[in-house]
Amino acid sequence: MALIVKKFGGSSVASPEKIYNVVNRVLRDKKEDDRVVVVVSAMGDTTDDLVSLARAVTSRPFGREMDRLLSTGEQVSIALVAMAFMEKGQPAVSMTGAQAGILSSDNHGKGRILTIDPSRVFKALDEGNVVVVAGFQGITDCGDITTLGRGGSDTTAVALAGAMQADVCEIFTDVEGVYSTDPRIAPNAVKLDEITYGEMLEMARLGAGVMQPRAVEMGSRYGVPIHVRSTFSDNEGTIIREDYTMKANEHVIQGVADDTNVAKVSVVGVENKPGIAHHIFQSLADKNVDVDMIVQSIRTVEDQKTDIVFTITLDDVVLAREVLDNLKAETKMEEYVINEKMAKVSIVGAGMLGEPGVAAQMFGILGEENINIEIISTSEISITCLIAEDRVKDAIRAIHDNLVIGNRG
Amino acid sequence: MALIVKKFGGSSVASPEKIYNVVNRVLRDKKEDDRVVVVVSAMGDTTDDLVSLARAVTSRPFGREMDRLLSTGEQVSIALVAMAFMEKGQPAVSMTGAQAGILSSDNHGKGRILTIDPSRVFKALDEGNVVVVAGFQGITDCGDITTLGRGGSDTTAVALAGAMQADVCEIFTDVEGVYSTDPRIAPNAVKLDEITYGEMLEMARLGAGVMQPRAVEMGSRYGVPIHVRSTFSDNEGTIIREDYTMKANEHVIQGVADDTNVAKVSVVGVENKPGIAHHIFQSLADKNVDVDMIVQSIRTVEDQKTDIVFTITLDDVVLAREVLDNLKAETKMEEYVINEKMAKVSIVGAGMLGEPGVAAQMFGILGEENINIEIISTSEISITCLIAEDRVKDAIRAIHDNLVIGNRG
Repeated sequence: MALIVKKFGGSSVASPEKIYNVVNRVLRDKKEDDRVVVVVSAMGDTTDDLVSLARAVTSRPFGREMDRLLSTGEQVSIALVAMAFMEKGQPAVSMTGAQAGILSSDNHGKGRILTIDPSRVFKALDEGNVVVVAGFQGITDCGDITTLGRGGSDTTAVALAGAMQADVCEIFTDVEGVYSTDPRIAPNAVKLDEITYGEMLEMARLGAGVMQPRAVEMGSRYGVPIHVRSTFSDNEGTIIREDYTMKANEHVIQGVADDTNVAKVSVVGVENKPGIAHHIFQSLADKNVDVDMIVQSIRTVEDQKTDIVFTITLDDVVLAREVLDNLKAETKMEEYVINEKMAKVSIVGAGMLGEPGVAAQMFGILGEENINIEIISTSEISITCLIAEDRVKDAIRAIHDNLVIGNRG
Repeated sequence: MALIVKKFGGSSVASPEKIYNVVNRVLRDKKEDDRVVVVVSAMGDTTDDLVSLARAVTSRPFGREMDRLLSTGEQVSIALVAMAFMEKGQPAVSMTGAQAGILSSDNHGKGRILTIDPSRVFKALDEGNVVVVAGFQGITDCGDITTLGRGGSDTTAVALAGAMQADVCEIFTDVEGVYSTDPRIAPNAVKLDEITYGEMLEMARLGAGVMQPRAVEMGSRYGVPIHVRSTFSDNEGTIIREDYTMKANEHVIQGVADDTNVAKVSVVGVENKPGIAHHIFQSLADKNVDVDMIVQSIRTVEDQKTDIVFTITLDDVVLAREVLDNLKAETKMEEYVINEKMAKVSIVGAGMLGEPGVAAQMFGILGEENINIEIISTSEISITCLIAEDRVKDAIRAIHDNLVIGNRG
């Protein structure tokens, strides 16, 4: 007897036929005593359609009303999925985020799950139901719906699995699992059988799209294993957990990630005096511009001028221009330049900690490919290089085939 | 300073443009100190589309899930309408039935409003908001949504107006008000300036489509005036209230109603013994078949056989056949015949009580038109004749022009 939370995304429930595929699969895999919670997203393009509808009414972000609007998509799909289970003879009951006890913060559009009281879910399971829960939404303590931002349904599933101490949270997706890199770029990419929360979090943060960082964080916080697997096959996917259960799955480098949603900002010739960097970055933070890799260089001691280079996401370019235009006079900067044609390539692996040569190997491979490295940043389990966007595929292939495949030989 | 509840139906909010028409009209008519609650239905054909979606998943009526599905339509429209108010600079806040404090019974698909606690609505009004409330829905005491059945948004609006002791509940519709009969059938039909709850209830029960009986009942219970008026013009419509405020608006006959959603059931030659009618009607009631006009006739005293004739709605014909087939042997009936091509024509007016000649006049007019009357039934303020469906328009025109227009000179 197992307690399992299964999450199906919008493309898996995009039509009545696809809903039945999901229901049939869940019922086929369900052992008699299993208790199953199914978390679903809105059908197909519903969320995009609702956004368009709102855009036809206003261009302004009215968060509370937008969240009410968007959260209807999941209410539609949970109702239909529950009906389909019952049509197949399986008692089922749908629950909104609120009914599943998911309390969220009130920052609309990107709510965070604060607490989960799954008592109503447990009660319904005890009565023999499959429980179908709306992903992507929670309720504030004053009874308003908040949505949880991009990938919110994954977060719902993993957090609910954690709060219920489920045996596993299965994330069904259109790929077979987590790959060592994007198979569309590097045909040699291999599916990973296991990966740690820490590594997955780093992969996700650095651009691997299969899981959102927040959902992985939730898994890590609650210690619930996350099984990323395909909606369309029965193959085992990738299990994300605290530690490797098989030595054979442990590698120095687990994966190579890329992220082209990045722009390089060069602030040239600002006064080299204490507090100037703080002032620039505080001004950007005040406008919610996320800054990632940062390098500051002093030209010469005599010059008393410095250049500051950093990266932001493409979405924030317009905001960043506003901020920097306002800072021009005050910081006495000579100019700033934003290059939107950049990309990050990263290698991720907990095993790198004890292997000091890895960084040199990575730089060497990029050098051999004649790819210029503009910025380097490192964490305990990753190394990231900023390069030109038009070389990112070459970089991924070369690094992956030499460092990942080469070392597993 | 007035407290006004305004209800707009699905066709009034069918697109962003139409939503702005509603918002502009509300803002134009709103005096500075007015407190305004706007109740809206789902946009255009949304409810029908959701029903189709459910039908593609199951043909069975899973009430709780169906209600969750259907209630999303109003959540979409309240969010968009609230956004449109804010876009126009008017603070606004949307509320589900639950948030507006509407507690309903748990009979899904036809929930009844049990109590209303509008404290959150008052609070939002006090803060200067227009409050936009989802029609057609309430919440059970265990937190599940129920829908209120056909015309449910009218019921929401009138009940909320009653609970809040509003000055008036305005029902915006695509006609100018309540007419003495259907203007599409009788071009002489006149718009009524006033009508009593009792008369309107009888008109609605007998087929006048402009208001649902339940909403009128709510108005009567709480004593809130209901103003039925056009979305597309500024003309005064019809005020439904307890008593006439102007003698000139009082007439013996207020209106003529027709209803073609009716079938005649003739149960021929059943045993004429005590309890047999009760047995037949109890069996129909057990299957929720609503029986309306009833006639029982004894052929001759010797025969010991009786015929029972009654009417049902067309929706219940299949169910009624099942029930009667099961009763055939037991009641020793010779046969039963169901005629689906019938119609009811009714005259309604509180003034008929003191005018015994009205019924005779009605029968005389139908006789002159060579229209056969199959069953007659009367209430204190109405007389109804069952006739053949293909003569209903002739009947309406003749009765209306002679009895309504004729008597008003």
